[in-house]
Amino acid sequence: MKASQMFAPTLREVPAEAEIVSHQLLMRAGMIRKTAAGVYTYMPLAWRVMKKIMDIIREEMDAAGCQELMLPIVHPAELWQQSGRWQVYGDELWRLHDRHGRDFCLGPTHEEVITDLVGGEIKSYKQLPLRLYQIQNKYRDERRPRFGLMRGREFIMKDMYSFDRDLAGLDESYRLMYQAYWNIFTRCGLGFRPVVADNGAIGGDASHEFMVLAESGEAEIIYCSACSYAASVEIARTYLDETPKDEAPGEREEVYTPDCKTIDDLAGFLRISPEKTLKALCYQADDQFVLVLIRGDRKVNEIKLKNRLDCISLEMAADEQIQKHLGTAAGFVGPVGVKNIRIVADREVPLLVNAVCGANKKDYHLMNVNPGRDFTIAETWDIRLAEAGEACPQCREKLLSARGVEVGQIFKLGTKYSKSMGAKYLDENGKEQLMVMGCYGIGVGRTMAAAIEQNHDGDGIIWPVSIAPYHVVVVPVSDRETDQMAAAEKIYQDLLVLGVEAVFDDRKERPGVKFKDADLIGYPLRITVGAKALAEGKVEVKIRATGEVQHVDLENVLSFIQDRLK
Amino acid sequence: MKASQMFAPTLREVPAEAEIVSHQLLMRAGMIRKTAAGVYTYMPLAWRVMKKIMDIIREEMDAAGCQELMLPIVHPAELWQQSGRWQVYGDELWRLHDRHGRDFCLGPTHEEVITDLVGGEIKSYKQLPLRLYQIQNKYRDERRPRFGLMRGREFIMKDMYSFDRDLAGLDESYRLMYQAYWNIFTRCGLGFRPVVADNGAIGGDASHEFMVLAESGEAEIIYCSACSYAASVEIARTYLDETPKDEAPGEREEVYTPDCKTIDDLAGFLRISPEKTLKALCYQADDQFVLVLIRGDRKVNEIKLKNRLDCISLEMAADEQIQKHLGTAAGFVGPVGVKNIRIVADREVPLLVNAVCGANKKDYHLMNVNPGRDFTIAETWDIRLAEAGEACPQCREKLLSARGVEVGQIFKLGTKYSKSMGAKYLDENGKEQLMVMGCYGIGVGRTMAAAIEQNHDGDGIIWPVSIAPYHVVVVPVSDRETDQMAAAEKIYQDLLVLGVEAVFDDRKERPGVKFKDADLIGYPLRITVGAKALAEGKVEVKIRATGEVQHVDLENVLSFIQDRLK
Repeated sequence: MKASQMFAPTLREVPAEAEIVSHQLLMRAGMIRKTAAGVYTYMPLAWRVMKKIMDIIREEMDAAGCQELMLPIVHPAELWQQSGRWQVYGDELWRLHDRHGRDFCLGPTHEEVITDLVGGEIKSYKQLPLRLYQIQNKYRDERRPRFGLMRGREFIMKDMYSFDRDLAGLDESYRLMYQAYWNIFTRCGLGFRPVVADNGAIGGDASHEFMVLAESGEAEIIYCSACSYAASVEIARTYLDETPKDEAPGEREEVYTPDCKTIDDLAGFLRISPEKTLKALCYQADDQFVLVLIRGDRKVNEIKLKNRLDCISLEMAADEQIQKHLGTAAGFVGPVGVKNIRIVADREVPLLVNAVCGANKKDYHLMNVNPGRDFTIAETWDIRLAEAGEACPQCREKLLSARGVEVGQIFKLGTKYSKSMGAKYLDENGKEQLMVMGCYGIGVGRTMAAAIEQNHDGDGIIWPVSIAPYHVVVVPVSDRETDQMAAAEKIYQDLLVLGVEAVFDDRKERPGVKFKDADLIGYPLRITVGAKALAEGKVEVKIRATGEVQHVDLENVLSFIQDRLK
Repeated sequence: MKASQMFAPTLREVPAEAEIVSHQLLMRAGMIRKTAAGVYTYMPLAWRVMKKIMDIIREEMDAAGCQELMLPIVHPAELWQQSGRWQVYGDELWRLHDRHGRDFCLGPTHEEVITDLVGGEIKSYKQLPLRLYQIQNKYRDERRPRFGLMRGREFIMKDMYSFDRDLAGLDESYRLMYQAYWNIFTRCGLGFRPVVADNGAIGGDASHEFMVLAESGEAEIIYCSACSYAASVEIARTYLDETPKDEAPGEREEVYTPDCKTIDDLAGFLRISPEKTLKALCYQADDQFVLVLIRGDRKVNEIKLKNRLDCISLEMAADEQIQKHLGTAAGFVGPVGVKNIRIVADREVPLLVNAVCGANKKDYHLMNVNPGRDFTIAETWDIRLAEAGEACPQCREKLLSARGVEVGQIFKLGTKYSKSMGAKYLDENGKEQLMVMGCYGIGVGRTMAAAIEQNHDGDGIIWPVSIAPYHVVVVPVSDRETDQMAAAEKIYQDLLVLGVEAVFDDRKERPGVKFKDADLIGYPLRITVGAKALAEGKVEVKIRATGEVQHVDLENVLSFIQDRLK
């Protein structure tokens, strides 16, 4: 491709609306343009990257025995009503109707459509397992679309659905997909980690998120420095140290603690360690007021709490609610003497000895409070946030944290959709059974954006070779020097013959403009053809990732480039 | 692929709703399934065909200097309001709104979106020409979707848009696309014809439709037996024989013609040739009543008439209207004595001598009517239907007719959209100019369906090799005979190694079922491994297209297959 003909309008300025690096660089490199909020055009360079990612996905899906098909984007409401999601999906489901007034939605995901299809066609256990995937546009009518391709309203996903006879079959499908995802992101040249993720449906290790590691990632990952444990912070398990405390329970007493609004205030005032304090937090879980207890130096993980409470809405209770239920203000709440209120506690709470907690009385706390003796806990769960530096729940070694961008998720669905959509088969004994399903997604645009979040510098994008829009750009320093232009074009043409994806920057631009664009677009290799080197029969090759520059003899440049691309 | 794992549920019965062959066979071969009216799932076999067609399209587009991108499917209403099409497109534009109440539509075509994009990015003549394409879902909310993939509401199109400096540039883009389309349909293995098509915007040879020839095609094509002339019947030009008639005008007389309702009745009653009669037809063109004259043996081409009248609606006038304007009933209408009514005539009418026409009086006609003497024609146009057997308007040789399925159209847009969307560039003199545009579409699903309309028999589909879902199916006659199964699987594995796309029908089914499915799905070649031939070290190879069967030595089967696929 000649740069003079390439539709890649680069920008020098950072667009004001672009908050994160991938959004900024995709805009600046002329790779995406906004058509409406959360709705983007993939320009030719970005589309080349997208196609490469899609090709890698297809190859790995096919190798894992999956078959590609193409389901509709426009879904009839009836299917979503059958699964019950038409009612519960909320405003993010982008609904529309046809000229006859019939209801439809733009598919955000395809469990309904594919389960209805497979349920209607598959009759026998002999036809299972079945693994079907597609790559297409998905829709989510976000209230506030942002971060470019990271949170759009129209986005491209690969979604795969597995249909198995039983849970053992699902385990095998899941294992195959775990490996396929591993291969895909490895082949994309990305640093990533699969982490255990939330799966309300089945629980346990029934879902993994694949996270591309990047400082700017929206998700925090907790992982072990020693073993394989890794989980999204939202659901990371914690280690429970059950070593008995060598301390006799003391007598409970009330102390005056003026201006002690926080745990740190309190610990400082009483000269105790925050570990000795007991925090009591008031939540409104749907219609229920709940008192949540946790050690004062810990944080509540509201995702884990919400999952355990199995509620739809979970919010901190308002001051009026606290007054009404406990007769006191926030900051001095405690469990002692509380009646007719649900009390749930983190697993560390029962192990406390002589703790300090709120007295349910303004400016007062209680000392030497002992669970069991002074108050009763009905429910004890792991509801605290895991933090870097703690012990690994699996091996007790040190946990670390990192940030990442979620680019894929694999998920055991079980029989949730086969039940609601009636997807059954006849087993070996002629008995009707529900198909056991899994679903497996990859955000294609997200993967491209995550690759940029992970691989960039102040000058622009640094594409991994396998997904770079082109491999090499050939830049003559001056477009007015015919020998430079001729030498550059010859190298370009020779590269094309060898199957190297090359761009010839033949534009009538100053060299600075061409170099800046080359760095911004992020070609892995740049060949510069300048007067001085050319006079010595050489060209300059710059490695984008390292900035390293080498002078290479003209006759060796093709093999040099081929070696570097391997 | 092993047939036991392939998601291709075949049907023995013809689905009641499927009116045309391609719809029937796509359903029966398990290649498509309906999700909603006009909304289909492409099953794995169909999707393989679609991907092959898309790959061919991509290769030819890229070779013609086009760049692929991906525009949004969801379009903001503002862009369509700017072009004016939001108002005029009607109910076929599938509209929706987002959670904030903003208007959008699902793109049926992308002139607005791409012209807005290119207009915003391209500044200089140096950046032109630009040729951009995409392959994606399109939407048309048809009142009555039917014929399977032929007239759906969600369908896959390749659409290309060219942006040139001037009309000469557009001509070059158009020429490149004409050639690319020729290559694409040739490589798809289809019999087709490019025909001149209607182009209200520019007129002349500014649009061609590419028609796949098939008896069941919805469109009639008129083409010359000798020269290159070919046009959709809707706009086919006619030859005008201007040879003077050697006949003196006679005296006009009124004759009683009872029960002569048709031209044939009249000609038979008066013992004259239908060529001597003059038909007068009453039309309502928007608000205007128009009398249309044509030779009695000819048919009016309402598309050509409507284009010439430049009206939005054109309908035959109702009896009351004819009574009101002419004071007579339909069947006896004529131009003589008519006042204050617009009269338009086909070009043959002024050449008539001593014609017979209606007398505007029930059961009476006029004889020896002569245009010019007996009535005046204001407008004379080519408005008649061209028919097979007539002389070619280009070379006077015999015209033939054929039926076809439109699979692509190329179209010179000129500055229609660059004007409304403001797509300008600066020319060599720094002067602002409108970009000159063309648009070029291919219906991908339509191409697949048209291939079936053209290539099938009573047993099923006969795929051209280049777009067949697989090349070869290997069928062991009995799945219980281990030597047959082993020999078949070995051939299958060897074919895969050679890169031949093969299916191994390993299902536990009767041979009849497997043979019927092979014919229905339409694999170009079938290798049958049966006991008798195998005992002689042979297998049977059946050519789907011809039905020809050959016995091939086992050691030669791979090279035989490779030769046949060339």
